[in-house]
Amino acid sequence: MIKEDTRFLIVGLGLIGGSYARGLSKRGLSVDAIDTNPDSISYALEQGMIRRGATRPDPALIAEADVVVFALYPGVMIDWIREHQHLFRPGTLLTDVAGVKCHVVDVIQGFLREDLEFIGSHPMAGKEVYGVRNSDESIFKIANFIVTPTEKNTPGAIAAARRIGELLDFHTIVELDPATHDEMIGFVSQLTHAIAVSLMTCNEDEGLQNYTGDSFRDLTRIARINEKMWSELFLLNREVLIAQIDSFTCELLRMREILCRQDRAALEEMFIHSTRRRALFDR
Amino acid sequence: MIKEDTRFLIVGLGLIGGSYARGLSKRGLSVDAIDTNPDSISYALEQGMIRRGATRPDPALIAEADVVVFALYPGVMIDWIREHQHLFRPGTLLTDVAGVKCHVVDVIQGFLREDLEFIGSHPMAGKEVYGVRNSDESIFKIANFIVTPTEKNTPGAIAAARRIGELLDFHTIVELDPATHDEMIGFVSQLTHAIAVSLMTCNEDEGLQNYTGDSFRDLTRIARINEKMWSELFLLNREVLIAQIDSFTCELLRMREILCRQDRAALEEMFIHSTRRRALFDR
Repeated sequence: MIKEDTRFLIVGLGLIGGSYARGLSKRGLSVDAIDTNPDSISYALEQGMIRRGATRPDPALIAEADVVVFALYPGVMIDWIREHQHLFRPGTLLTDVAGVKCHVVDVIQGFLREDLEFIGSHPMAGKEVYGVRNSDESIFKIANFIVTPTEKNTPGAIAAARRIGELLDFHTIVELDPATHDEMIGFVSQLTHAIAVSLMTCNEDEGLQNYTGDSFRDLTRIARINEKMWSELFLLNREVLIAQIDSFTCELLRMREILCRQDRAALEEMFIHSTRRRALFDR
Repeated sequence: MIKEDTRFLIVGLGLIGGSYARGLSKRGLSVDAIDTNPDSISYALEQGMIRRGATRPDPALIAEADVVVFALYPGVMIDWIREHQHLFRPGTLLTDVAGVKCHVVDVIQGFLREDLEFIGSHPMAGKEVYGVRNSDESIFKIANFIVTPTEKNTPGAIAAARRIGELLDFHTIVELDPATHDEMIGFVSQLTHAIAVSLMTCNEDEGLQNYTGDSFRDLTRIARINEKMWSELFLLNREVLIAQIDSFTCELLRMREILCRQDRAALEEMFIHSTRRRALFDR
């Protein structure tokens, strides 16, 4: 389905949208972009990241697209598609980059025109900086690309979404149903951010930075967090995240209880277990 | 107090003891070592890290030392000093590398001969690997060196301990009283390890490693943990650590409560706060 002359349209030219534009253009593919910020569009044009750009939902650009990648916050994306879906040519494939999938996929597939197809994608990559000027397609090289098909998706669309992951040179490309995706992401991404933020905000001592070792820096790096995007992602997946917080808190309180009763053997067992399990995650 | 001809004795030639030996020898200082493992001693001799070595508490080596650095687990160190302190020359300075200070300093200063002096030191450096073969003095370059004097310490001993930190090229050298040290370390080091371990052991899903991003790897790197050493450190500082676990858990449960009531503004405020606070910790 994706060929040499496939025309891509990226809606939302921030860090991830910009990195998609760079990566696909380097592959020789035709990439257009829409972003409300004129500076982002002119920068991308100057850099040769895109062929054409617009700051409004330009009907000509939209009608020419074969594949549209939405790199917007979930709520903005849903509204955009609802409002502008009449502008797409029949057969256009829509996909996204959102970090949560159940709500997004369910809502969009629910209202989308019958002659269009939406398939969820999640590039598990990012940086602690934002915007097209920080975009960099090399962030995908060590990252996972997750495609989240439902029964409404065709084999052709699934193959096309996977092909985008290949073109962008992702380390691993996998398929998960949206619910399994959100469960997993609630643990490996959202719970870790919840922990980092809480660790950062639970102690107001102003002098701590003078004594901080690498371990504290490692655990709190992701406490620098885009509050608009992550609030939206947390709230869209709140039931899963609350369950993950409960499971983690329960385990930390088990350690607390071991400390209270000074049970060295139980503490050592917990450390041996964590060491063995962590070894599985080395890359 | 520390001069070009000062003779160092390192007791315990593991990762930290070995890194001390490398760093001090490179500075042209005389370094001897005692370790029960003959392989560690012969390796260090081959590498030119030490001048002389012994696998037992050799009275000649011990009597010649001007400064003795104990790089042993806290309990082993306390027993060693109690049993062998009669072998030191009057005026010998003893110091250590233990990660908790109140108990260690209090006990040792309590029973030590009047003509010897013990001053606590904590090099906040490490690796996830162990033993003299992994020793590397460059781990000190970005690390903090903390000296923990009490009213029993002399200005000369404090200056000597600080000088060791300088000779080993630590990034920052500071003084803290033992209680303040343990409070701080309970937060920046022990709580972070408790969190990493609990995060690693609270979920038994075997497939998670296929979907893991950098944030999860960052948060769990220190979940590979030496169970003997860390159990000892946790238990020696358990009251502080329990209080830190409570303060962190309280903050994480505040976030949980915000998620339950879907309070986007409160969530954004927490993220803005954590982002602002984390910026202080960049190095």
